[in-house]
Amino acid sequence: MFSGAQVSLYPMSDDFVGVIFGAIGALDAWRDRLRIETDDISTLLVGPPEILFPAMRDLLLSAAGSGVHCVLSAAVSRGCPGEPDDPVCTPISDGPDGRPLGERIYAARAAVAGSGLTGQQVAAQFSLYPLGAGHHMDEIYGCIEFLKSSGVFDRSKNFCTKLSGDAGPVFATLSEAFTRFGAGAGHVALDVTVSANSPSAA
Amino acid sequence: MFSGAQVSLYPMSDDFVGVIFGAIGALDAWRDRLRIETDDISTLLVGPPEILFPAMRDLLLSAAGSGVHCVLSAAVSRGCPGEPDDPVCTPISDGPDGRPLGERIYAARAAVAGSGLTGQQVAAQFSLYPLGAGHHMDEIYGCIEFLKSSGVFDRSKNFCTKLSGDAGPVFATLSEAFTRFGAGAGHVALDVTVSANSPSAA
Repeated sequence: MFSGAQVSLYPMSDDFVGVIFGAIGALDAWRDRLRIETDDISTLLVGPPEILFPAMRDLLLSAAGSGVHCVLSAAVSRGCPGEPDDPVCTPISDGPDGRPLGERIYAARAAVAGSGLTGQQVAAQFSLYPLGAGHHMDEIYGCIEFLKSSGVFDRSKNFCTKLSGDAGPVFATLSEAFTRFGAGAGHVALDVTVSANSPSAA
Repeated sequence: MFSGAQVSLYPMSDDFVGVIFGAIGALDAWRDRLRIETDDISTLLVGPPEILFPAMRDLLLSAAGSGVHCVLSAAVSRGCPGEPDDPVCTPISDGPDGRPLGERIYAARAAVAGSGLTGQQVAAQFSLYPLGAGHHMDEIYGCIEFLKSSGVFDRSKNFCTKLSGDAGPVFATLSEAFTRFGAGAGHVALDVTVSANSPSAA
């Protein structure tokens, strides 16, 4: 299993370099469980699927604390057959959730209900891509059923689903969508955008 | 067939609103062939698969002309079974390219070689997701073979491929990857980030 994310942070500010460098420290708490590499487009996080979204949440919260309009964008992936196994990616849980779709929806909902609030409102939209499976639309529709009962569902858009609310349950919902749907040991990709402090937010 | 993109433009500037409004006019040349809807996270472009990347290229070029570091991020999709057919999406060409992989690679390379230069250097990275097909990795590996001979290939990264060069051939390469690989009438998604005027570009 290989899992990780290519993450970019966009502060809409003349001081974008300062905001980014100021926020990177938020990843320190996760560094012992992640491999981190940065270039001019994105930062690669490689690690267990369960901690990718909590780490991204802390990064965005730290940048958004500046008050600046910030967007975090990421391509998240697990189980890609083109990537080598890597011990740093070993799931923290007992492995993939192989239960029937209905039970996974229930478990995902419970996990979001138990997530803490952060005080930062965000809007997010994402697409889930369960790859290589014949029934990829079944997993997508199951995930949408979970999303609609997550408490942070905003609306369905073309190609993606929009969430809004506190960053705590929003990132928890993204994490559940990523880890709980699509084949347990299969190739699942997720493309996400999370926006904070937007002047055009409803 | 339904095809389109959820596009976001991020100017790293205190005047991000001004840069975005100034750049939107670049879409005017495409408006008669696109349906366009905007909310606080992204702008939806719905139209033929062949004009999505040229329209996004013009949008980014217009914003980058300000000299500000700008990033365009998009989730692009065609053939999603959850979306209704829409006449505005009718492909301009004679329909999907159903030829063998080798011939499609050749055609894609020729199309990029014929694209014009814009004078704007960019770096891009993207992931291609051919969904619902059993052989999705074959299409991905075929696409990678094309990319390596595109003239703008930079390097393979985890989960994505990085391109760099003039915006003309870079967007042409993205467009060819999107329209030429994955099942012709199948569901293909592409997640892309294009960066201009980055102070940390190599």
